[in-house]
Parts: sequence; C-alpha cells; structure tokens
Amino acid sequence: MWGLDRESKKPLYQQIADHIERRISFGEFPPGSLLPSERKLAEQIGVNRSTVVQAFAELRSLGIIESRSGSGTRVSQFKWGASPKHTPNWNRYAQGGSFLPNLPFLRRIREALSQDPSLVDFASGELAADLAPTSEISEIMSSHQYASYLGYDNPQGYIPLRQALVRYLAEYRGLQATESSILITSGSQQSLFLITQCLLSPGDAVAIEDPSYYYSLPMFQSAGLRIFRLPVDQDGMRLEEIRGLYKKHRIKMIFTNPNFQNPTGTLLADERRHQLLQTASELGLPIIEDDPYSLTDYEGLPRMPLKSIDTSGSVIYIGSFSKIAASGLRIGWMVAPNSVVLRLADARQQMDFGLSVIPQQVAAQFLESDFFEPHLSRLRTNLMYKRDLLIEALRKELPGEIQFHIPKGGHHLWCKLSEPVNDAKLLEAAIRNGVVFVPGSVYGSDAGFVRFTFARAKSECIGQGIAGFARALHSLRN
Amino acid sequence: MWGLDRESKKPLYQQIADHIERRISFGEFPPGSLLPSERKLAEQIGVNRSTVVQAFAELRSLGIIESRSGSGTRVSQFKWGASPKHTPNWNRYAQGGSFLPNLPFLRRIREALSQDPSLVDFASGELAADLAPTSEISEIMSSHQYASYLGYDNPQGYIPLRQALVRYLAEYRGLQATESSILITSGSQQSLFLITQCLLSPGDAVAIEDPSYYYSLPMFQSAGLRIFRLPVDQDGMRLEEIRGLYKKHRIKMIFTNPNFQNPTGTLLADERRHQLLQTASELGLPIIEDDPYSLTDYEGLPRMPLKSIDTSGSVIYIGSFSKIAASGLRIGWMVAPNSVVLRLADARQQMDFGLSVIPQQVAAQFLESDFFEPHLSRLRTNLMYKRDLLIEALRKELPGEIQFHIPKGGHHLWCKLSEPVNDAKLLEAAIRNGVVFVPGSVYGSDAGFVRFTFARAKSECIGQGIAGFARALHSLRN
Ligand SMILES: Cc1ncc(COP(=O)(O)O)c(C=O)c1O
Ligand SMILES: Cc1ncc(COP(=O)(O)O)c(C=O)c1O
Repeated sequence: MWGLDRESKKPLYQQIADHIERRISFGEFPPGSLLPSERKLAEQIGVNRSTVVQAFAELRSLGIIESRSGSGTRVSQFKWGASPKHTPNWNRYAQGGSFLPNLPFLRRIREALSQDPSLVDFASGELAADLAPTSEISEIMSSHQYASYLGYDNPQGYIPLRQALVRYLAEYRGLQATESSILITSGSQQSLFLITQCLLSPGDAVAIEDPSYYYSLPMFQSAGLRIFRLPVDQDGMRLEEIRGLYKKHRIKMIFTNPNFQNPTGTLLADERRHQLLQTASELGLPIIEDDPYSLTDYEGLPRMPLKSIDTSGSVIYIGSFSKIAASGLRIGWMVAPNSVVLRLADARQQMDFGLSVIPQQVAAQFLESDFFEPHLSRLRTNLMYKRDLLIEALRKELPGEIQFHIPKGGHHLWCKLSEPVNDAKLLEAAIRNGVVFVPGSVYGSDAGFVRFTFARAKSECIGQGIAGFARALHSLRN
Repeated sequence: MWGLDRESKKPLYQQIADHIERRISFGEFPPGSLLPSERKLAEQIGVNRSTVVQAFAELRSLGIIESRSGSGTRVSQFKWGASPKHTPNWNRYAQGGSFLPNLPFLRRIREALSQDPSLVDFASGELAADLAPTSEISEIMSSHQYASYLGYDNPQGYIPLRQALVRYLAEYRGLQATESSILITSGSQQSLFLITQCLLSPGDAVAIEDPSYYYSLPMFQSAGLRIFRLPVDQDGMRLEEIRGLYKKHRIKMIFTNPNFQNPTGTLLADERRHQLLQTASELGLPIIEDDPYSLTDYEGLPRMPLKSIDTSGSVIYIGSFSKIAASGLRIGWMVAPNSVVLRLADARQQMDFGLSVIPQQVAAQFLESDFFEPHLSRLRTNLMYKRDLLIEALRKELPGEIQFHIPKGGHHLWCKLSEPVNDAKLLEAAIRNGVVFVPGSVYGSDAGFVRFTFARAKSECIGQGIAGFARALHSLRN
C-alpha cells in the first residue's frame, strides 16, 4: 500500500503528484476520466487540501491532467489518450536521484550573472582576468611540444605533474610527499566530492567550520552526512566542542580551511593548530585540510599547512591552482595515505575516466617555469590592492553601517551589517543596482552577513559596485 | 543493540571486525586485555567460526589485535595503549562509502599494464598513438592564441565548443540540436555517471544490453539500480522483452550502444531501431543512446543515431571524442531536454566545477579545422587494417578454436572460444605470455568469451600478441 513518507526529502505534494501519475499510468484513471476532488483526495491521504492543490498544479503543468472550472479535474486526452506517442516525463526525471540541487541563492546569482555580464561581481570566488597568468599560459602552450600520447591518463593523474607537485609541495608548503601519495583532481572541489562520496557512508557525522564554504555545498547532504559545526572566531575554528561531538555523535572527519578561510578570511592561530592535531591524533580522527588560499598571503609570509606539522598521519591535504593561478585549469590535488589515493582514483575512473592530460601538462610546465614566482608576487600585490579598494569604498559608502576584520590574504571580505535586513531582498535589490555578492546565510551564518569577493571584480569597478550595494541596502531601510 | 545486517553489501566478517573495533575503542576491551575466543564470539553472534576467523585476521592486519598461539587474542598495546597517538584507520575509511570499486578483472588488467608496459594491449578500449591526431592537436595548440579568460567555465560547457558541436551534429549525425540542449562532459563516461546518479533513484530498474559495456561499470550498482538485460544477437539488441520488463519491473530507462556496440561490434538493425522508438514512445520510456563509435564505419557509411529519427523526444544522445580522436582530451557531450541539461549541469558543478576550458578550446578548433575530415578517413582505414591483422592472426594461431563475426566498425572483436576455459586462469596465463585482453564475463557474458580491442595495439605487435594468447590458451588445455 502506498503511503506518504514524511521523512523523505521529497516534498509531500511531489509524492502525491507522483502517486497520482502512477495510478494514471497503470490505467486506474483512463484518459478523459474524472479524478477525485482535491478535498476528497486530501481526506483520503490525510493532508491539507493545499498540498493536494499543489500536487494538481504540478500535474497540470506537466500536461497530465486538465481542470475546467465547474467540471472538475480530468486525465488529459492528449497525454494519455488514444495517440500512442508519449514523451518521457523528463521533468520528473530531472527531479530524481539523491543528488540535491545547488542552493537557490547560488543559482540566482549564476542566473543574474549570465543574464547581465555587466554586473559588478563580488560573488564568484575566483581571480579577475588581469590577475590570472593568461599570457604566461598562452606562451607555455604555444612554445611547448604537445606531441605526447593523448590516451586515457594514469588514474592518479599525469605523472610529470605529480612529480612537479612533489617539488612544489616541498618548496612552498613544507610537505614531504611522493608521487604515489598524490591524486590530481578537477580542482579541490572534486577532492571534496570524492572524500564525501567514497570515504564516508550515509549517516556518518562530520564537523565543519561555522560559517564555512562547505555549508554551501549540497554534496554533504547528498552523501547523507550529518553535519555539525564548530564556530569560527578571529583566530579561526574553535576547538572546544570537538571531543563532545566525537563522544556524542562519533564524528568521522573534520573539514577545515585553516588559511584565509572562505568566507571569513581568518587564519587558524598557531596554538590551535597544535591543539587540533593533538586532539585528532588522540581520537584517531581524520582532518581534511583544504588549503587553496595560503600562497596569497599579501606580505608573502609562508603560511604552512597543518599537514606540515602532522606527525600522526591524521591529515589529508588538498590544494588547488584555482585561487592562485586559474580556476579554468581545473587542477587540484590531494595528498593522502596510499590506500585512500588508490580507492579514490579507482572511483574517479568510474565517474569521468580522469582529467584531460592537456591542462595537466600546462600546469606542470607553469609550475616549473620562471613565470611562477613572479606571478605569485604580482598576484599578492594586486589582491591586496583590490582588498584596499574594497575597504575604502565600504568606508566611504557605508560608514558605521558595516563591520569587518581586515584579511591578510585570500579573496574574500566577510562583513556584518550593523542592522540586518532580509538576505533575499538585499540580493535582489543589489542585482537591480548592478552588483552581486553572496549572502552570509549561504555559508551557514545568520542573516546580516555578507561575503564580498574582491579578487574577481575589475579594480575600476569596485567603487561603483559598492555604491550600488549601498543604494540597495538603503532602499530596504526606507 | 548491534546485530548483523545480512542485507548489507558489507561482508559479514567486515561487519564483525567493525563491531569489535568499536567495542575496543569505547573501552570495553582495554589495551592488552583478552578478547573472547573465536568459537565463543561465533556462537554469540550466530555465524560460522570461519567468519570470525576472517574478522580477526582483518583486525590483526590493522594492528588492532594480536594473537599468540596458546594465549589467545589480545587488544594491541601499541595501537590502543598508553601512547595517545592514533593514526586514523585509513584502510577502514578507504572501504567506506556506497561507491563500489572497479571490477577485479579490470583492476588486474590495469595493474598488469602498469607493471609491464610492454604487454600487447588488447584490453584498453582506445586508439593507439599512431591513430590519434596528436600532431594535428599539437599544431592547433601552438598556432592559436589562448589568451582568453581562464575562469570557471559555463556550467554547460564552453560555448564555442557547443556551437561547433551544433554544426557537427547536423553535418555528421543528422541531429538538430541547439547550444542550450548540449552539455559537455568528461567523456561519455561522465554523461553516464550524471544520468545514473541524478536522473534515477535507488531501487529504479533499468535495461541494458547483454553483453554490454555498462555491465562492467559498478556505477550502476553504486547508484542502487536494478539491472535487467536484453540479449544482443547479430542484429543488435533484441526487443521482445522490453514490454514485459516494463510491466513487471517498471523499468525507467534503456541504455543502448546501437552502433558498433561495445563489446560485440554489432549494429542495431534498421527495423529494430524503428521498433525500439515505437515501443519507447508508447511507454513514455527514455532511451539513453551512447554513440561513441559510429563515425568509425570502415566504409565511411553514415550510421545515423536513433536520435535522428526520434519524433517523440524519447532519446538522450551521448557522443564522445574518445573513440574517434583522443580519449585524453576527455571531451564528451550529451544532447538532452533542457530541464535535464540544467539539472545535470548544476549537479556536475558541485562535483568538479566543470571541465578545463583548454581541452574544450582544442576540441572546438580541431572539429572546425581542415584536419578533421582527413583524420577521420585515415582513422577508418587504419582501424580496418588493424582489424584485419587481428583476424589474420587469430586464423593462423587458433584455427577452429575461436569464433567471431567480423565487425564493420568500432574498436573491438568479440570472440567465442570453442571450448571455454576459466576466465581468471586465462587472463593470468595471457599476462605471463605478454598480452592482455578483457574476459567476456566483465561484460556479463558466460565464461568462454573474449573481447579483443584492436584499436590500441601497435600493428606490428598484433601477431605476436595473438601468438601469446594462443600459447596461454593451449597451456590451460594441456
Ligand atoms: C575553501 C574552498 N575549497 C574549495 C573550493 C573549490 O575550488 P576549486 O575546485 O576550483 O579548487 C573553493 C572555491 O571557492 C574554496 O573556497
Ligand atoms: C560504449 C561506451 N560508452 C562510453 C565509454 C566511455 O568512453 P569516454 O568516457 O572516453 O567517452 C566507452 C569506452 O570504452 C564505451 O565503449
């Protein structure tokens, strides 16, 4: 017997719509026949009438049923009638699967940007065209021979790139890695995806920072993980609750972004680093260290990873070129115990057969070229310049209305509005005023927080963008 | 209360090992303490003693327990002792998740090839170096400017590549597509992954061909799909059972590779194409048409896709450059209803943030270049040549011992051994004799079938490879 599943992620009205469609397709209600009234169905099923109204609206929009005022709701002739042609119900398929869609705010921002590319973009977490090493990469591509074999790549990634990364990790990140402990992935994103899908099981508990980039990723929910949060203050993630979470919920991993955290820009303080590793090793608890921003330290200070002081093998380290070179290369890497690397390489092979060798060759050559070091120092200077432009504009346009700590690296400025307004309204007003940002709630914070990414916008547009944001904010206050 | 889950995919011994480890970590058995005997535990849990023996072996290999003959089994001092350092149990994590590992035969083949690259490779389904347009791609890369913006790409893929594909699909595949109906993916593989993960739900039933490439992909099982099979004969997939499967199991999709099918090399006969579409449209049943091989028709005949005669919108079409240009480009595409494309683009964004723009630019330029058409005709001639070398070698080395139909396109020759031998033994004997192939059982057939891929091996090695295979086969007969 069919019944509603009130635990399911699928909304009730959708379950009812599915159920009715199934009954129609099984022939219970032939084409043209009258369906029970909304009230009657609501009673039968034990839901509010409004839920059935919604279910009927869904079925109507799919052309499965038709309502005429006064004569009730009937099964469409067109869809289920004598004509034997049925298009599959693609909309229904598109809603299937256990993989959740992106957050509505993120989809809205993407849509707004694609409709109006002239928006000042404080939302996309990536480098502006003038910060990416585009001409260097162009030069590398035109001056090298790419006559190597273009077959399926090694499951762990292109070997010369892994070799270049071994040298890079030793020189820049204080890490001793070997080729076989590295897995090349499509950005850090794919590393995170592989870890959440293949090392954890539905029902497992994990801890993330609060606020956190990971909060914006439905992949954690899609994998069926239970998410617990550790608050971030000026010194990064607070650690007090880890033991409690471990005892009570048996958390299986901690995800952290200790250097210039997305979205807060904070650095995890040194004592906390040692304490975190100590706790992890006492509990045998893995730490996933996601470290895309550390080389952007504006003063060029070496911000070493947790992994470089991890003596108990607790840390999986993730890096990426996205935030220091070009997100369009889609090159990230993971340093992990070999059993983990082999398992994830095998899984990734099934998902997409690995990365194209071409961007891996380009990345390896860029890393080993004389372009790399000068690019990094130029990048740091320019990022700091953009940060300062943003801060100047905020101080000018919104004095006393917005608070922030000044980040020493990274792409993002995390702001608190002195008087919170509704997130959705603020985003829509901003779009009307020519600018996009990411509402803090996307990262799990309360209303009234805003993430401005300063890396992406053109320098000459930052002032104008913040002026637009200020107009938007003020329009909601009046 | 803990109990065994006999429905779980996790083996019983593993469940028991996990359970014991948990009890140890909760302090139930402190370091150095004696565990109950295997016999006693087996009784308590209600399993055979051998299962507990296996669980103990697992825990011993992880260093969690130690056995000394005569004095029973104890919790290790080292692992759980006074020293507070615990490395996370990475092996346990590597066994987690619902994503299943690749088939053992495929892992064995990959391992053998990486240990000994001189093996004659009749296993990898891809083009040999001399068949790929390597020099053309090199020339394209060095002669074009890649000074475009290297940011995160459009979620559906690089727009100029989608535009080039619209023209390609019209000219080569008889398909009217628009930019917005195309999703660029990491080969056909990622298209298949997205479909199985995001359009279908665990428990859904699907039909595939028998034998079939899809049978070799654990992703179908990982997604929790129930798989039903439709036998393939000389004219491709047989259709008689579709209605029955639909009635009985409510199959939700049919996956087919109608042109030069992997592994059998067959073409779906024309009447069957019409019949399949007719049935699909009567049932409102989606067809996933995976079409990587059609342009390899050795006589250059246009082998049009199902999708080109699909008037009811039943077909999602998947194409790829892997089998006609270079698998290392990792460029595939899907033509699907817009709601499906948007849904899958959104999901893919979460998994890996899309493909690098660089190989997409290369692919677009190659497709629109004067290189493309001459490459294709050279490819066809060379593939036919390699096919003929393979057939000649088989006739010489194994007269009367092996049967096959001669394929008119594609990469593969599907063979039946007149007297079947054990698959695993044959593969090991072949490796010892310097050659790899794929046992037919990987594709779901009974023992005694073999897939030889002739596209991958060097022409001058094909004879020697088959001689090695013949020695292997004969060694098992004596
Ligand atoms: C903390 C963090 N991790 C991972 C990513 C994903 O980046 P990519 O996959 O391009 O390396 C981002 C991007 O915003 C990020 O901020
Ligand atoms: C029928 C079929 N589909 C899909 C694939 C995956 O190829 P790719 O992802 O390289 O396009 C293969 C490769 O062997 C295949 O034979």
